[in-house]
Amino acid sequence: MDHLDLMKKLHIESTTKIVLLVMDGLGGLPLTPGGETELERARTPHLDDLAARGICAMSTPVAPGITPGSGPGHLGMFGYDSLVYEIGRGVLEALGIGFDLQPNDIAARGNFCSLDEDGLITDRRAGRIPTEIGARLVEKLRAIQLPGVETFVEPVKEYRFVLVLRGEGLEDGLTETDPQMTGKAPLPIQALRPEAERTAALLNEWMAKAREILAGEHPANGCNLRGLAKDPGLPKMGEIYGWKAGAIATYPMYRGVSKLVGMDVLPTGDTIEDEIETLRTHWDAYDFFFFHVKKTDSYGEDGNFDARVEVIEHVDHVLPDILSLGPDVVLVTGDHSTPAKLKSHSWHELPVLFWAKDIRPDGVTAFGERPCMLGGLGHLRHVDLLPLAMAYAGRLAKYGA
Amino acid sequence: MDHLDLMKKLHIESTTKIVLLVMDGLGGLPLTPGGETELERARTPHLDDLAARGICAMSTPVAPGITPGSGPGHLGMFGYDSLVYEIGRGVLEALGIGFDLQPNDIAARGNFCSLDEDGLITDRRAGRIPTEIGARLVEKLRAIQLPGVETFVEPVKEYRFVLVLRGEGLEDGLTETDPQMTGKAPLPIQALRPEAERTAALLNEWMAKAREILAGEHPANGCNLRGLAKDPGLPKMGEIYGWKAGAIATYPMYRGVSKLVGMDVLPTGDTIEDEIETLRTHWDAYDFFFFHVKKTDSYGEDGNFDARVEVIEHVDHVLPDILSLGPDVVLVTGDHSTPAKLKSHSWHELPVLFWAKDIRPDGVTAFGERPCMLGGLGHLRHVDLLPLAMAYAGRLAKYGA
Repeated sequence: MDHLDLMKKLHIESTTKIVLLVMDGLGGLPLTPGGETELERARTPHLDDLAARGICAMSTPVAPGITPGSGPGHLGMFGYDSLVYEIGRGVLEALGIGFDLQPNDIAARGNFCSLDEDGLITDRRAGRIPTEIGARLVEKLRAIQLPGVETFVEPVKEYRFVLVLRGEGLEDGLTETDPQMTGKAPLPIQALRPEAERTAALLNEWMAKAREILAGEHPANGCNLRGLAKDPGLPKMGEIYGWKAGAIATYPMYRGVSKLVGMDVLPTGDTIEDEIETLRTHWDAYDFFFFHVKKTDSYGEDGNFDARVEVIEHVDHVLPDILSLGPDVVLVTGDHSTPAKLKSHSWHELPVLFWAKDIRPDGVTAFGERPCMLGGLGHLRHVDLLPLAMAYAGRLAKYGA
Repeated sequence: MDHLDLMKKLHIESTTKIVLLVMDGLGGLPLTPGGETELERARTPHLDDLAARGICAMSTPVAPGITPGSGPGHLGMFGYDSLVYEIGRGVLEALGIGFDLQPNDIAARGNFCSLDEDGLITDRRAGRIPTEIGARLVEKLRAIQLPGVETFVEPVKEYRFVLVLRGEGLEDGLTETDPQMTGKAPLPIQALRPEAERTAALLNEWMAKAREILAGEHPANGCNLRGLAKDPGLPKMGEIYGWKAGAIATYPMYRGVSKLVGMDVLPTGDTIEDEIETLRTHWDAYDFFFFHVKKTDSYGEDGNFDARVEVIEHVDHVLPDILSLGPDVVLVTGDHSTPAKLKSHSWHELPVLFWAKDIRPDGVTAFGERPCMLGGLGHLRHVDLLPLAMAYAGRLAKYGA
């Protein structure tokens, strides 16, 4: 019996409410040896107080040493083993813009890029063209027709778009066109399974036509397709945990993955205050809330230590607003580490804080990497977090007689 | 190679002796936030001294967040993954009263209950009738005959009895009659597999006859059957660990599960002193002793914090008697938590204490949940406990060349 089967079998009705507060990329590193991480540097009186009244841990998102992308990071946090359940990036992008993806659609994340006269990539993001220009180019690409399948091209943000193919017999198991470096041409898409040969051929035809259409543009005179995939058909949270789950996130990707696991994506604005307002508005209607804060990750990618500290302090500042709603369980963590020092996601463990009624106290009095290393729950895996939250919420029956 | 295969392969002859001292439901919770658990409150100079000379840990019985019943809790402690090996409650009850269960018998736990004139349950435990009345009713139920199978009805305690069917072609995979609430009638037994149809029909026939027989009784004018199951045929401890194992337990259930894993159940009395005497008497004849103390769990279920503290202090008081026999390894823990605060089993981790000759010292100087959270063995799973005990006892060969 696996993890999710156990949850399916044991979950019981309850009126308790759980908030999963995620600061994306929360885990940090000191800029100098022995120094403080972003979380340790931040002044977080409310999180520290919650840690003192709660129980802490460190947690590994996927497996020791493994740096997760946003998909696996979130899947793990939601209790799905990301080594078993995989989501293609194209699917995440499509769902993130609210595209009504069908089970047999093939979705790709598209990036406009700049090509030189030899067709070699000079800028993989086409100078990060503004969203309006991206949208105009997408409009042009919609003219491309393929035999026997419908195509959808949708703008995302700046240089990013989504391509979806819909029709009979489309299969995933496809390579990407993006060579992940400049000075090379986009690669032809290859089928990794014989069943996907026709899909690869259709996509290569689409790429050839797109190149013709974009030829006269500048700087976005080419594009790449990445993460070609189908909806993996994940089991849904309602069925696993028996709860009604609402997702509050300002960025498409996280709304996308939330939808994929069966959460209702709640309308919200761009700021943390908007998200708090959304939480308040929908408080009575849901059992579980996924509350996602994006900018801890964005500033990590930018290498901006101080801005990460400020975002964490901002979250600390609104924590009392969350607590004032009366949750039964609060779980604070991140989907992966994004230390400003590394300017990228990393494999480092995440600090975790559980607060609930039936907490066994540990000696931790501050929320930070160093205190959490001595946390009372030890070292967990992300897939264990929601089962523990379920237990603290009194939402699991006894296993066996 | 799984856990048990590894033990089978690597165990070696030795004269060392291991004592597994189990306080049932040992793990606790403070009654007030930040307060002491039962174990932390108890004055335990001998356990603290053993912790100071030993090495400690926290351990998860089944999986994070999962609250085990007594069966899974004990199986885990004995090294059997309870997500792989399951024991039906009927089997546990039958073995617990010393019933000589055969491999193809179907055993059920029976509960007398009270029914109203419409046949709806008004009390699932028939007012907890005294054991003598239960025994008299069992005597009446023995008159029931079923075509082609033998039936055995045995009293357990108060309102509980065991029903066993013996004969060719009996199969498990059966639902229970107990609707788990009052105001409903007992449910018909259904076969979960086609092979079990005949067994279900026989049991429903038994239930109908039992209702006729009990009709004139008060308050026990009905009954329910739960946990209908066969002996799961677990691999035996002797074969796995290569030791001769003796179980010392005052309650039927724990004697039952011990028998199921191949331990000799040693005759003992009702008190901890009786159990110590049994240990002393059989000391030379066994390699491994399972020493079970029940009342830490019973008082937890009652919500009696102080009585739990007293039982723990009582165990501490007799610990020198155990140590004076000269064990090579002492392992102290519980099968699950039963905090008085919750009045039920819970998912919380268990404190664990290992004492042996080749112990690597940690800094722990008291046996309690908070100190064990910082124990030198970190956070274990219950299935890891006996392999570690085997190692500390010098009973495992090297793995690989």
